[in-house]
Parts: sequence; C-alpha cells; structure tokens
Amino acid sequence: MSIPDINKEQLYKIADHLKPYIHRTPVWRSSSLNKIAGCDLFFKCENFQKTGSFKIRGAMNAVLSKTGDELKRGVLTHSSGNFAQALAYAASCLGIKAAIVMPESVIPTKRDAVLGYGAEIIYSGNLPEDRESKCAEVIEETGALFIHPSNDINVILGHSSCAIELISDTEDLDYVFCPVGGGGLISGIALGFSVFSPGTKVIAGEPLNADDAYQSLKAGKIIPQKDPDTIADGLRTSLGDVTFPVIQKYVNEIIRVSEEEIISAMKLIWERTKIIAEPSGSVALAAALQKSAEFKGAKIGIIVSGGNVNLSKLPF
Amino acid sequence: MSIPDINKEQLYKIADHLKPYIHRTPVWRSSSLNKIAGCDLFFKCENFQKTGSFKIRGAMNAVLSKTGDELKRGVLTHSSGNFAQALAYAASCLGIKAAIVMPESVIPTKRDAVLGYGAEIIYSGNLPEDRESKCAEVIEETGALFIHPSNDINVILGHSSCAIELISDTEDLDYVFCPVGGGGLISGIALGFSVFSPGTKVIAGEPLNADDAYQSLKAGKIIPQKDPDTIADGLRTSLGDVTFPVIQKYVNEIIRVSEEEIISAMKLIWERTKIIAEPSGSVALAAALQKSAEFKGAKIGIIVSGGNVNLSKLPF
Repeated sequence: MSIPDINKEQLYKIADHLKPYIHRTPVWRSSSLNKIAGCDLFFKCENFQKTGSFKIRGAMNAVLSKTGDELKRGVLTHSSGNFAQALAYAASCLGIKAAIVMPESVIPTKRDAVLGYGAEIIYSGNLPEDRESKCAEVIEETGALFIHPSNDINVILGHSSCAIELISDTEDLDYVFCPVGGGGLISGIALGFSVFSPGTKVIAGEPLNADDAYQSLKAGKIIPQKDPDTIADGLRTSLGDVTFPVIQKYVNEIIRVSEEEIISAMKLIWERTKIIAEPSGSVALAAALQKSAEFKGAKIGIIVSGGNVNLSKLPF
Repeated sequence: MSIPDINKEQLYKIADHLKPYIHRTPVWRSSSLNKIAGCDLFFKCENFQKTGSFKIRGAMNAVLSKTGDELKRGVLTHSSGNFAQALAYAASCLGIKAAIVMPESVIPTKRDAVLGYGAEIIYSGNLPEDRESKCAEVIEETGALFIHPSNDINVILGHSSCAIELISDTEDLDYVFCPVGGGGLISGIALGFSVFSPGTKVIAGEPLNADDAYQSLKAGKIIPQKDPDTIADGLRTSLGDVTFPVIQKYVNEIIRVSEEEIISAMKLIWERTKIIAEPSGSVALAAALQKSAEFKGAKIGIIVSGGNVNLSKLPF
C-alpha cells in the first residue's frame, strides 16, 4: 500500500477530535535516569493514558472516522491486550456495540477490563488463524465492522496525536525512541514527527525474540513473526501492508533488545521514576540505553507506551 | 512540649526556601478509584518527590534552619528508611557532611541510595536503644548535629509545605487522609491545614499492627510502640513529645487498617493509577476505603507519602 499524503491541518484536526476522550499525558523527567543514560530523556507517559495505553488514540480515531451507518452493527477486533480494552472503551463512549475476539488463554484481568467497558467477548483458539476465522464468522453473522489493532490508517493517524503532544511539550528532540510490534504506534509517531519535527530521528526498539520488523526492513518485504518468545506481550505481532511502508520510509533504525535488557529497563523506570511501565512500554528505554554511548548529550523522547501489567506475575 | 504559634507568613517563607531543593509534586486523579470509593479523591504524589518520599521537605528545612556554625561538624540521624536518604541528599545539596546510623539489617538498595548521596553510614544493632547509644557515641566523637526524623519542629514545619501545595491545587477539601508513624508528616499536614484550610478535617491512617498513635490518643499520653509487625515499614516508629500534642490538637480521627487492607490499597493504586506507592504510602487510601460509606461524595485529599519499595519483595 502507498503512504497517504498527510498535512499539519489534517493531523491537528484528528488530535482535536480525540481530545474529549483521551488524557493529555505528561512528559516525565528523571535526573537519575539522565545520569545513567548520559542523555536528556523525555518520557511520554502513555501508561497514564485512558485504558492504560496509547491504544485508545487509534481505536477512538478509527471509530470517529466511520459513519453512523457503518457503526450501526457495532465494531469488532481481535486482541488479547491493550487494543481490546481501547476499542471496548471507545465503543462505550459512543454508545455502540463492541465485540472482541480473544484467545481462551487470555489473562483474567484483561478479560475483566473489557467486560467492564460493556463489550462482548468471543473466544477463539490461541493461533492467529483461529482468531481470524472467528472474526470472519462474527462479521458474517452480525455485520460488525472490523477494526485492525495496528494495520489501519485511521488507527495510525490517531496515534500521531501522541507525537503532536510530545513535540509541543519538548524542544527540538534529536531522537524519539518508540517500540515496534504491529507497527501502528511507531507509524503514527513517525508520520507525526515527519510533519511537525522532521529533524528528529525516529528509532524503533524491538525485542530480539520478536524481531519481524528488523527482519522485514532488512529483506525489503514483510517477514511475518513466527513463535515470538518475549515478555513484551504487546510486541509479538507482525507488521502489515499499511504499517510496513511507513516504517520503511520514516524509521531511521531498529535497535533489537534482549529480554534481560527489557526487564532491566522496566525495573529502572519503576525504581527511578515511580511509574509503572509494562514490558512493551520499557522497550524504547532499553533500546536507548543499549546505544547510549552513541547518543551522548542528545535530547531523546522515549515513548512509554503502556502500563498494564499483571502484578501477580512480575519478572523481578 | 507546647505547640508553637505559627502563621501563614512563616509557613509560606519555609515553603519558599524549600522550593529550589524539592519537586512540586502533582495531584493525581483516578476516575476508577473515585468510582470504587464513592468519593472525589485527590492523591498528593509524594512518591514523585526528590529521594522518593516527603521526607526531603522536613530534612531540608531542618538543615536550612541551622547556622553555618551549627552545621560545620555535619549532621547525623538514625533511620533505615526514607529519612536517611532525605538527610543525605539535603546535606549533599548544601555541601555539608552527613552521617546516618543504620541497623546492620538495612536493605542494600536503601544503603546504596544513602551512599550515592555521599553520606557516611555507621552501623548499629537492630534495637532502638542500640541506635540511640550509637548516635550518642558519634555526637561525642564528632560533634555532629543530631536531627530527629520526625520529632523535630523544623522537620514538621518543612512537611507543612506539602499541605500548602495540596491546598493550592485543590478546592475546599472536606478531608485530608495522611499516614501516621512517628507523626512528623501528619503534624506538618495538620498544622498547614489548620492555618490555610481550617474547615478540612485531618484524618490519620495507621497500621493496626503498629497503632501507638491510636493508643496514645486514647490514653492521653504517649504509649510507645512495642514490636510493630507491619509491612508499612515507614510507620513502625512512635510518636514523640513534639508530634503528640500537635496530633492531639489537630487530628480529628485515627483509622486503623489491617495488613490486608494496606496491601489491597497498594495494589489498587498500582493497577488503577500506574504509580508506585510504598506500603506506608498506601495507608491513607486504605483508611479512606475502610470508611468510604461515611464519606460518600466528599472531596478527600490522600497523601501518598512515598514510593520506595523493594521490587524483589512485593506482597503480591
């Protein structure tokens, strides 16, 4: 797919429409983490976002960009994680139905959060093909509108509102580090920076054990992720035909991080800033720390993408 | 001891002097916790304070209120916790020496934080009398100035700056809930509210397993804490002759909470607000939740006193 032409006015308008439904999340500083990194770090705290992650930006924008007629049979997605909560919440805000296809192995707290927003859960098997066939079944039966968690231009453009806020709350960032999984967030961040702060280099952090984005960029074509084995559960998915070209064009580098680096970055965030970042939300810092010697003294935005963790199952 | 006369100008002046050394911590809201409590909660986030707790306010004010001559042989305290870090940091800001008497059983991360601020650690046995005799020894040898972690009027007046900020960032709180251990924080909060917002009722939260403040108020005299057995490690100490009369006069009620209630409140804060509160910092919410039916619809300030936890030893 080709990258859509976008301009400032369009992105501002999207961000404006989202405002009533989302938090303007703070940008956090930590002198002790700056000392450790040898850089000036600006943490964009999407862990404090509505539903606990950035996903509400994309989910809400996707829903807001549809007509009443398109939405009248409700919306549908597959997700066992943050997009499930986000779409359930977005639908509840607008008074429309949401159905979420989740694997039977879903964590009870995540299931309960979705139910708490009034969405219906439809269980599928644990494999990607299981959830896809289940979605097709539901669409056939109900006529619900499917919204993909990342590979959807309106989802991506919703996430660009996060870039607009970060740019307006900082000055001339040299770099912005962002995690990459399905690529929805980093595509939105990269598009936002390309328009409002083109001098800032966009760098992705990716788990070494789920490095399909790295492999795809290297191969020049989408290499789907097989058997990802990472604690960063939000980053196990693969790039799609909408996100891949955006990342190819606008992301300067992908830095892969080990499981130990992710856990260590997560612990640093918890201990030093007293905020809760989930493993996926700690990958950007892990990447920045791995190469901090190269970035000495630079001004670096770090996207802390979410804070939804299972407190009974922490890695430390 | 009698309660000193204090006025607005004096408290403003103290808060002004502290400004360069401390963070103005944010007031946090959570719609989901409001729903659970049935009240309007305003969390004063001292977990985001310099050194990870409110203690820097009192430690810094105590040091700032001394003359150069009084400070020239350095300062000394006994603490295995947050006051140790706070005094070490305060001394490092002013370029004076600090010595901290700590029990040999101190947690390594807390020891390292104190060493990181350049303070000297002097080990004592684990009993209160051990640390007191060790302090006397050090004073005799070095002439260092002893600063008590809570039972010191300048420490207390430093903590009143937290009340000033909370009052200025909210409107007409009906109640403010604050943990009580040695009583330094709640004395400062209570004095601050008595001057700037006398209509707000001050309520203490105290662990049932370390309820010396409750017992002391009931008996009308200080009943020292014996063998406290609570996860809220910052609240194991006893009231002193400076804090007791302030609490007698200005604290409306002490609500005692069980260990389960403390852990459950801590988990709620972590899960719902994505911020890290230590057990002692969760006691005020635990107390508010215990009696939330009585406070329906009220506007309640909750002091989250600190966020220094041992991540390897969490209760959930």
